[in-house]
Amino acid sequence: MTVNRTPPPPLNPPERLLMGPGPSNPDPRVLTAMGMNPIGHLDPYFVELMDQTMGALRGVFQTTNHHTLPISATGSAGLEAIMANLLESGDSCVVAVNGYFGLRLAELARRAGADVRTVEAAPGDTVDPAAIEALLVERPAKVLAFVHAETTTGACQSIPEMVSVARRHDALVVVDCVTTLGGVPLDVDAMGIDAAGSCSQKCLGAPAGLGPITVGPRAMEAVRARKQPPATWYLDFGLLFQYWGEPGGSPKRAFHHTAPIAAIYGFHEALRLILEEGLDARWARHQAAHEVLVRGLDVLGLSLFTPPAHRCSTINVIRTPDGIDEASVRARLLTMGVEMGGGLGVLAGKVWRVGVMGHNAQTARIEQFLGALDAALRAEGYSA
Amino acid sequence: MTVNRTPPPPLNPPERLLMGPGPSNPDPRVLTAMGMNPIGHLDPYFVELMDQTMGALRGVFQTTNHHTLPISATGSAGLEAIMANLLESGDSCVVAVNGYFGLRLAELARRAGADVRTVEAAPGDTVDPAAIEALLVERPAKVLAFVHAETTTGACQSIPEMVSVARRHDALVVVDCVTTLGGVPLDVDAMGIDAAGSCSQKCLGAPAGLGPITVGPRAMEAVRARKQPPATWYLDFGLLFQYWGEPGGSPKRAFHHTAPIAAIYGFHEALRLILEEGLDARWARHQAAHEVLVRGLDVLGLSLFTPPAHRCSTINVIRTPDGIDEASVRARLLTMGVEMGGGLGVLAGKVWRVGVMGHNAQTARIEQFLGALDAALRAEGYSA
Repeated sequence: MTVNRTPPPPLNPPERLLMGPGPSNPDPRVLTAMGMNPIGHLDPYFVELMDQTMGALRGVFQTTNHHTLPISATGSAGLEAIMANLLESGDSCVVAVNGYFGLRLAELARRAGADVRTVEAAPGDTVDPAAIEALLVERPAKVLAFVHAETTTGACQSIPEMVSVARRHDALVVVDCVTTLGGVPLDVDAMGIDAAGSCSQKCLGAPAGLGPITVGPRAMEAVRARKQPPATWYLDFGLLFQYWGEPGGSPKRAFHHTAPIAAIYGFHEALRLILEEGLDARWARHQAAHEVLVRGLDVLGLSLFTPPAHRCSTINVIRTPDGIDEASVRARLLTMGVEMGGGLGVLAGKVWRVGVMGHNAQTARIEQFLGALDAALRAEGYSA
Repeated sequence: MTVNRTPPPPLNPPERLLMGPGPSNPDPRVLTAMGMNPIGHLDPYFVELMDQTMGALRGVFQTTNHHTLPISATGSAGLEAIMANLLESGDSCVVAVNGYFGLRLAELARRAGADVRTVEAAPGDTVDPAAIEALLVERPAKVLAFVHAETTTGACQSIPEMVSVARRHDALVVVDCVTTLGGVPLDVDAMGIDAAGSCSQKCLGAPAGLGPITVGPRAMEAVRARKQPPATWYLDFGLLFQYWGEPGGSPKRAFHHTAPIAAIYGFHEALRLILEEGLDARWARHQAAHEVLVRGLDVLGLSLFTPPAHRCSTINVIRTPDGIDEASVRARLLTMGVEMGGGLGVLAGKVWRVGVMGHNAQTARIEQFLGALDAALRAEGYSA
């Protein structure tokens, strides 16, 4: 074989309305921000920007946790960072599993060397806090981890009951809020969450590439009490937090890696948009857009897979109607410039997944989506 | 403490000529690419773009290695991925250390659970292949790792001798080419390198945020022969390579994480610029710009710290002149919109570091830098 040195063709990405489970379309201001003057990661202005970004992210997580920042990798890495730093070999971890992302939390805990026990629930259901408590009574755990809204099934786990159980048994609470942060109410401090990880490309409305996390004082105590450093250098909290700056610490900042500056520009602008809008208004906007979607689906004769009690405005899982080729419907939608997600794992072929996220959580965009879905369904021979 | 929900001020990054050890200023085409239509990571066009990006990156690494792709995190994570997948508990690793980044390779190997032996050299020197061989004679190692050009000292390690030693003792060769790929000759296949990792923001000319790696067949054999999975899920080659696509494999692509699409757009455009220019022409451009820099420094009475035999065009380490405040010179340069790097570790305060990298490796930009440096030096009371 010889090495091919032919340049690739020019980029030519199509226009898309991104109504899948993420990424969503960022506000144009975010894309403009990413193209602004590149600077160095040791530039005094960038240091200031890191502080501003941490501050704004605290506002969005609703926390005073100093250790709140975007990991320089995608949301998955943010969650790995939390599990890899909070857990070590010999630690016990209980994970609530009601879909792919619960399984992933369990796998992250296993990779960190933990002894992992899971409580499972059927797709669409949430995990019973009493079953979690039964495990913790049997044997305590250092961490209880769960997914706020399971992106594969649309089921939203109520946080307060899980936190109460964890507190009664002295377990740290880790929440995967990848699909909820910035879209539905989430109050890290008031809810008593010890550590949470999200992503940049869903309800926060930035491109994929950053893993926003927050780590509270109880979790930091556990990190400091580790017997050995984590197996990861890139995601080692000790090194990362020195780089982003410890409060009043010395040295204020120590080199670790080179921050992805263009991505931080976009993320900073996305956070600014959120705090300008206000969290209450933003959550209400997501809820209103979700309701427009559900009413429109009803008119089309489509129903949600997730039971009403567990629904989440940001991730809408729809039963595919009998007798049509669900993949053809998605392919046809894509030719109209509209992306919708398919099912993952056991729900593959059985559901569609529609995100109501960030900049796309607007009535006009939902109506555009519904019109396109209607046309695609009719073209595939479906009638309500 | 109460949560602060005040939006941060608008972004306002200053204009900078980035002449430090990276990031460098990207070609404007790269920044434009990052703002192009966002699409989903499962979009057929994005799948095509992943293949194109892997293909173009193979061209730049000069390899036919299928497993060649940008890790969805910065260059540091790419190197961690290589060490975490090639090494496991009980493996032996020999690392050449002549500066901060050699130490980092050793630390990455330790985190992967390896038994690490190092051969050290003084700052500015390269590591003696005979000393490496002595260690390998004493006891074999699975991996020999070294830095091509040590960014803290400017010393460029000659690759062929190191590869010969490794081959004689059946060790895999891992190269940190963070500061060289795209700027100085590097031919992965012809040189017999088993795995190499670089970054996006230096000579490749994209923003920071991606960790380009290539992994050859011998290294892949070692990965497949592991006794246990790596401690990292995010950087697990098995999962990553399924996501990017195994050759003719089934399943062709399996979900792992959400690729940072905007960053990949910029990276794709940066690779396209490199292959359009041609590698030979690009290396010659870096060399010519380096020579302009060295002549200009000589006129200013400044000399390079790195001995001539070990110099690298892309990273120029300059002795700070006696009797001036080196930090003041850098601060003054910055007020003129020009960034230059300071020393790191034992060389802090003793050297400046000037990158000749990517889009900035042009005579005009070097002359602009030299003019600003001259003015800053004179303003600080220096005369040649």
